[in-house]
Amino acid sequence: MDVGVWLVGARGSVATTVITGAAALRAGLAAPIGCVTEQPGFAEAGLPPIRGLVFGGHDIAGTPLPKRAEELALAGVVPARLPELVRQDLEEADAEIRPGVTPGPAGTQAEQARRLADDITGFRERRGLARVVVVHVASTEPPVPAHPAHGDLAALTEALERPGDVLPPSSLYAYAALRAGCAYVDFTPSTGVSLPALDELARAQGVPYAGRDAKTGETLVKTALAPMFADRALAVRSWSGTNLLGGGDGATLADPAAGESKKISKDRALPGILGHPVEGQTHIDHVSHLGDWKTAWDHITFEGFLGVRMTMQFTWQGCDSALAAPLVLDLVRLIARAHERGHAGAVPELGFFFKDPIGQEEHRLHAQYDLLRAWARTLA
Amino acid sequence: MDVGVWLVGARGSVATTVITGAAALRAGLAAPIGCVTEQPGFAEAGLPPIRGLVFGGHDIAGTPLPKRAEELALAGVVPARLPELVRQDLEEADAEIRPGVTPGPAGTQAEQARRLADDITGFRERRGLARVVVVHVASTEPPVPAHPAHGDLAALTEALERPGDVLPPSSLYAYAALRAGCAYVDFTPSTGVSLPALDELARAQGVPYAGRDAKTGETLVKTALAPMFADRALAVRSWSGTNLLGGGDGATLADPAAGESKKISKDRALPGILGHPVEGQTHIDHVSHLGDWKTAWDHITFEGFLGVRMTMQFTWQGCDSALAAPLVLDLVRLIARAHERGHAGAVPELGFFFKDPIGQEEHRLHAQYDLLRAWARTLA
Amino acid sequence: MDVGVWLVGARGSVATTVITGAAALRAGLAAPIGCVTEQPGFAEAGLPPIRGLVFGGHDIAGTPLPKRAEELALAGVVPARLPELVRQDLEEADAEIRPGVTPGPAGTQAEQARRLADDITGFRERRGLARVVVVHVASTEPPVPAHPAHGDLAALTEALERPGDVLPPSSLYAYAALRAGCAYVDFTPSTGVSLPALDELARAQGVPYAGRDAKTGETLVKTALAPMFADRALAVRSWSGTNLLGGGDGATLADPAAGESKKISKDRALPGILGHPVEGQTHIDHVSHLGDWKTAWDHITFEGFLGVRMTMQFTWQGCDSALAAPLVLDLVRLIARAHERGHAGAVPELGFFFKDPIGQEEHRLHAQYDLLRAWARTLA
Amino acid sequence: MDVGVWLVGARGSVATTVITGAAALRAGLAAPIGCVTEQPGFAEAGLPPIRGLVFGGHDIAGTPLPKRAEELALAGVVPARLPELVRQDLEEADAEIRPGVTPGPAGTQAEQARRLADDITGFRERRGLARVVVVHVASTEPPVPAHPAHGDLAALTEALERPGDVLPPSSLYAYAALRAGCAYVDFTPSTGVSLPALDELARAQGVPYAGRDAKTGETLVKTALAPMFADRALAVRSWSGTNLLGGGDGATLADPAAGESKKISKDRALPGILGHPVEGQTHIDHVSHLGDWKTAWDHITFEGFLGVRMTMQFTWQGCDSALAAPLVLDLVRLIARAHERGHAGAVPELGFFFKDPIGQEEHRLHAQYDLLRAWARTLA
Ligand SMILES: NC(=O)c1ccc[n+]([C@@H]2O[C@H](COP(=O)([O-])OP(=O)(O)OC[C@H]3O[C@@H](n4cnc5c(N)ncnc54)[C@H](O)[C@@H]3O)[C@@H](O)[C@H]2O)c1
Ligand SMILES: NC(=O)c1ccc[n+]([C@@H]2O[C@H](COP(=O)([O-])OP(=O)(O)OC[C@H]3O[C@@H](n4cnc5c(N)ncnc54)[C@H](O)[C@@H]3O)[C@@H](O)[C@H]2O)c1
Ligand SMILES: NC(=O)c1ccc[n+]([C@@H]2O[C@H](COP(=O)([O-])OP(=O)(O)OC[C@H]3O[C@@H](n4cnc5c(N)ncnc54)[C@H](O)[C@@H]3O)[C@@H](O)[C@H]2O)c1
Ligand SMILES: NC(=O)c1ccc[n+]([C@@H]2O[C@H](COP(=O)([O-])OP(=O)(O)OC[C@H]3O[C@@H](n4cnc5c(N)ncnc54)[C@H](O)[C@@H]3O)[C@@H](O)[C@H]2O)c1
Ligand code: NA
Ligand code: NA
Repeated sequence: MDVGVWLVGARGSVATTVITGAAALRAGLAAPIGCVTEQPGFAEAGLPPIRGLVFGGHDIAGTPLPKRAEELALAGVVPARLPELVRQDLEEADAEIRPGVTPGPAGTQAEQARRLADDITGFRERRGLARVVVVHVASTEPPVPAHPAHGDLAALTEALERPGDVLPPSSLYAYAALRAGCAYVDFTPSTGVSLPALDELARAQGVPYAGRDAKTGETLVKTALAPMFADRALAVRSWSGTNLLGGGDGATLADPAAGESKKISKDRALPGILGHPVEGQTHIDHVSHLGDWKTAWDHITFEGFLGVRMTMQFTWQGCDSALAAPLVLDLVRLIARAHERGHAGAVPELGFFFKDPIGQEEHRLHAQYDLLRAWARTLA
Repeated sequence: MDVGVWLVGARGSVATTVITGAAALRAGLAAPIGCVTEQPGFAEAGLPPIRGLVFGGHDIAGTPLPKRAEELALAGVVPARLPELVRQDLEEADAEIRPGVTPGPAGTQAEQARRLADDITGFRERRGLARVVVVHVASTEPPVPAHPAHGDLAALTEALERPGDVLPPSSLYAYAALRAGCAYVDFTPSTGVSLPALDELARAQGVPYAGRDAKTGETLVKTALAPMFADRALAVRSWSGTNLLGGGDGATLADPAAGESKKISKDRALPGILGHPVEGQTHIDHVSHLGDWKTAWDHITFEGFLGVRMTMQFTWQGCDSALAAPLVLDLVRLIARAHERGHAGAVPELGFFFKDPIGQEEHRLHAQYDLLRAWARTLA
Repeated sequence: MDVGVWLVGARGSVATTVITGAAALRAGLAAPIGCVTEQPGFAEAGLPPIRGLVFGGHDIAGTPLPKRAEELALAGVVPARLPELVRQDLEEADAEIRPGVTPGPAGTQAEQARRLADDITGFRERRGLARVVVVHVASTEPPVPAHPAHGDLAALTEALERPGDVLPPSSLYAYAALRAGCAYVDFTPSTGVSLPALDELARAQGVPYAGRDAKTGETLVKTALAPMFADRALAVRSWSGTNLLGGGDGATLADPAAGESKKISKDRALPGILGHPVEGQTHIDHVSHLGDWKTAWDHITFEGFLGVRMTMQFTWQGCDSALAAPLVLDLVRLIARAHERGHAGAVPELGFFFKDPIGQEEHRLHAQYDLLRAWARTLA
Repeated sequence: MDVGVWLVGARGSVATTVITGAAALRAGLAAPIGCVTEQPGFAEAGLPPIRGLVFGGHDIAGTPLPKRAEELALAGVVPARLPELVRQDLEEADAEIRPGVTPGPAGTQAEQARRLADDITGFRERRGLARVVVVHVASTEPPVPAHPAHGDLAALTEALERPGDVLPPSSLYAYAALRAGCAYVDFTPSTGVSLPALDELARAQGVPYAGRDAKTGETLVKTALAPMFADRALAVRSWSGTNLLGGGDGATLADPAAGESKKISKDRALPGILGHPVEGQTHIDHVSHLGDWKTAWDHITFEGFLGVRMTMQFTWQGCDSALAAPLVLDLVRLIARAHERGHAGAVPELGFFFKDPIGQEEHRLHAQYDLLRAWARTLA
């Protein structure tokens, strides 16, 4: 029986690249570059194959997937002719996209959650799926103020039945997914599943979840490089970063409120690895001319023997959706298998994939990889 | 009883920084930044303390150490007033420097080796040292042609007694050091100890050795970054590097023959980590205006999901001698302790420090660090 | 007869470097690198020689110049031993520094201005100077709200006699300087002399002035590079910049209000040269570990033939005070000569030196240089 | 009457982009970005319009232009659908391509030259063209040894009738073009028209010529930036460059002999502008994964006031053919008009377009632009 992938933000760049790419892999039109779980070390883990994944999701945008894929082809994110070649898969997935939810009055959030959960279970039954993994890849939300009902499942259940918004959309999607018995992945820095009440729910429902904010660019490099300074006893004194990005994500993050969520998430790794706070700011600028491409420039000063000051800089020029999409496939495969093997609650061993790993204090990339590999062996 | 450090190339930039820095640490004038073995994880290993190290060595240059230290202060490699403050230590070490050897006619190499070994044992006895570690930090030599006597100790011993050069100076120093019962460290890419006949000698003498070519800049970063691409299944397609450096080392490496040794050493890591050869050249240019500072620019192209091409670049602006000096101290401490604990022959676990680790195939920096830490625990 | 230089902010990094450097040039301890007016093309212009300049100024800080110079030597801004060698000149200048003014209640601004002007005329007479040039090199102020008295000299004169602040300190210094019959240079982006009422005053007094905000780093490069894109008909689509700087100036500009003045000034050049607004932000971050060194990273995207997107990046690593100091000397020499030759009011031909040239719309560096050279010939 | 463009290397990337782009401009499918002569300042010069250009040429490769254009579209050099839209123009130009010549035995070079000239005059007559401009955009050749016949037209004419090669192909093309009465442009660093005997021929024939080696990337930036250092009296101490490029041109230049021609040409500008030689090497590496894209990294060290050392770096990521193609169109328009107006011999005022301008010592980009603009006004 196949595994379903329910994408919240199903018409976004990441989601479209995921669906287009999975179809390309299935049709033998592309090699699984960037797919961690296609490497030899994961062959024994019993992961569901990419070719068996079935896609659907929620979105508030109406542009059909085939058109979104054409746009990505024009932007060079997917090969020029690919959207045509996998048009049928795109249409099939598009037919499984249901309207999402936005903040603001539209009945109680409990009613909304029931509708969202019904969308997902309808998909699971209609398509005869063994299980469905819900992945949040919608636009990043601003940080949300704390609310007493976030801390306790009973209080939350009750509060949702009252008018007014208790949860941001990202958390409402997570709530609905868990209620529907689905494993859940927070690919964005939005609040999502990271509330004690939702952790309680996941454990009650016996479903695993993981997050948050996929690590695909500047932070990925940071967590590969910072251990070098630490292990060599070089004293990092400042680390400054400027991120330039266009695309839908860039437009969203240009809003200071949403950008704040991303910065908080990006700024966790460094002190975690170096063991002390480090001077320096992180900027996220919207540069529409860059399209789906991101350029990050990082500037690091460090001190060596006898206090000598040295400098390292790097520039990362990546295609964000191309970096993100294979990780979505990896996460789906791993968490679906964890669900099958009975894991419930947070899966800290998936921290390798995230800027701000839930349940894990380890930020060093290689150590996260070792943890992931060891855990994958237990899934066999 | 104290440990002696015999530096071949004792008046070079690295050696002068080592001696000046050790004096500064001893006098409490500096913190041990850049000293790996001063980190908590090495506290139990029973390493000899830096403050107990006693210095001497060979060189073919005559400029006294106090003057060399002044030059380094002017160049910003050591703090402006430090040479004055540690002048006595510099003079003491300078008094222990003996003339080195160069290629060409000067009696048989066996005679030369006996003289070199006598210099070292004289130092050990005169200063009442528990043991002496010999570290080769002299100018890089060109690669040498193979010679039948390199493969076998008996043949070598015999050949050295005949007129003519069988060994390059770096290997003659290694031979003498081992004959004198000293642990040996190859800090440069020169041939040095890396001949089967010398391995035989080290094991016969019961002394450990390690090498070669300290990993302090571009290659250090490479071996921290390349695993990131590998673990994320991103396909590195090219890796190009340009190294600009002045100083004595820069002048030496500007000679294509010596540069060749360095390039061979630098080019080992990448295919080792990525599992396949990678397009791209490595340049080493002499830019005298940079003095002891090195700038490396690396440019990497890689392919991601669906074949999308991406780019990463980094610039490393380091002070080579400041990066090298604490590693000399680390290596001395570790190999002296290994000697004390009875290790004989190559110590592959010291690969963390080298571009071209003798006896180790592992090039990933973090994995080398894990091996080093584990081995250090066995020294306790 | 000698020319006096009255520095507002006389104990700052720029001022200290100016005074130390002029003394070094006078003593033959340094070559005039970075001094535009020491190039052959200016030999005939009849400029006062650097060796005849006499220094004094205002500041609100108390650290004596010899100590400030020592600090700069430690930071590598001036050679290690220079402060000692020119100690007497530093002490002499220090004896000519008077307390500055700050915003807030301290009598009327008219009284303050009279005291400031008296300080300057006292210096001129005591030292027997032909004329004095006042140069504003104090900390950057935030932009100030418009005030009706800024537009008209009579209204301003009247308003200054009433309690309360009509002018920011930078403009009060300018007012006092002009009243004292001195040529005036605005080296900073502060409001300074750039008010219609002060222009009226300068013309009434028959003194020249110039400004504002010296062009020493990122903007200098921008105005050299942007014409290349324009002349080659390449369409610049975005230009983003991040400036990292420590030092006193960095600490001041870390305050968003002061940083705003600098950004406004920095953002003028590009649309002026390209003829259209360009996407992209400019960041100014304080990184204390950089000391007096500034690193600017600029990232430019542009479109070429058939819409192909291309990228250029540059990194500028400069010592701000070393870049600024020779320009102060140039400006003093040029405007003193203009004063002598009877120029009154703004001198737009000095725009070559400024980010936001008063009275000049030309931002292209080479065109500004041609204007400067042509004007200098008229001074002969 | 229309103007003909005869491209030597007509199936190369530059030539294909020229022909595809001219067709796109004619059809209103693209704006003339990158075309210098489409800017307002050239409106009065009486230049032939791009839409009236007719293309033909020589090549030794057989791949038809429509296929070459498809390859460039896949590589992102021209828009994905453009080759299809201008297919007819590509086929028309392809029908006008004749076999080129290569070194080695194939009759005398005089016979070859007559055949080449006949190809061009046949094209001119068949298509009823006012005049034809020949542009050399074939693969770069190695530098050639001097030959006595290069210095004198009579000697050359005689030598060509004897068996054996007197001229490299690039010069044979130039000889044939001049014999056919055509203006000639050397877009490459090959020897081409730059021989005294050919200058004599051009003047005898009354045709203008210009060269050599179009300035499209690193050198373009160099000649925009170097004057900034010179005008600010900053002392450039080193300038190092690494160029990474793939494509046909990259493969050619990977051959050290051909690369040498390019380096000689690239290295002229800097000493010309700064007035003294500058330390530093220029590398040209072939990186096939970059395709038609070039990345240049330049690293500059300079000294400022009181000897302070500073650094500037830039990275240029350009699409070489997209940078070159509009310049070919510019040069054709300008030299065709010069021909019409009776200019004969070298046209130094076109130096703006070249790395190694024939007949011009000026390398500063802006000064070259001023010369070009002034000369263009004389064409009106
Ligand atoms: N691409 C990466 O490398 C990367 C890495 C980490 C995190 N992310 C995160 O992934 C998310 C998606 O990125 P993207 O580039 O695809 O962005 P995008 O703007 O292209 O797509 C976001 C999609 O979410 C939809 N959406 C917005 N609000 C919604 C709602 N309330 N309910 C349902 N759908 C909603 C939008 O309509 C849009 O289709 C972002 O939050 C981004 O920060 C991406
Ligand atoms: N600094 C680093 O980061 C680093 C890293 C790896 C390797 N290394 C290597 O360390 C070595 C030393 O570097 P450095 O910067 O001190 O160079 P340096 O040129 O300053 O010093 C080399 C010294 O070796 C001496 N020497 C030369 N030939 C000799 C001989 N035959 N016998 C004895 N002494 C001899 C020279 O006189 C000189 O004093 C070089 O081989 C370099 O490649 C340095
Ligand atoms: N260095 C450059 O490249 C450069 C370029 C353009 C402009 N500037 C401007 O030059 C100015 C000086 O820069 P710096 O690096 O010397 O800064 P700094 O902080 O080292 O010095 C500023 C000095 O001004 C003094 N000051 C502050 N308020 C004053 C007041 N009200 N009256 C009198 N003195 C006062 C301070 O006490 C201090 O001594 C800044 O405004 C800076 O933006 C510098
Ligand atoms: N693109 C730029 O920015 C730029 C700038 C300056 C100079 N150039 C020069 O322009 C030339 C063309 O560059 P490209 O990228 O088109 O190269 P390319 O390799 O794509 O094309 C070269 C063409 O020349 C043809 N050719 C080779 N030898 C020939 C001969 N003997 N006779 C006729 N044709 C021959 C080849 O078959 C090929 O079609 C190169 O010499 C390059 O150095 C290019
Ligand atoms: Na630097
Ligand atoms: Na790029």
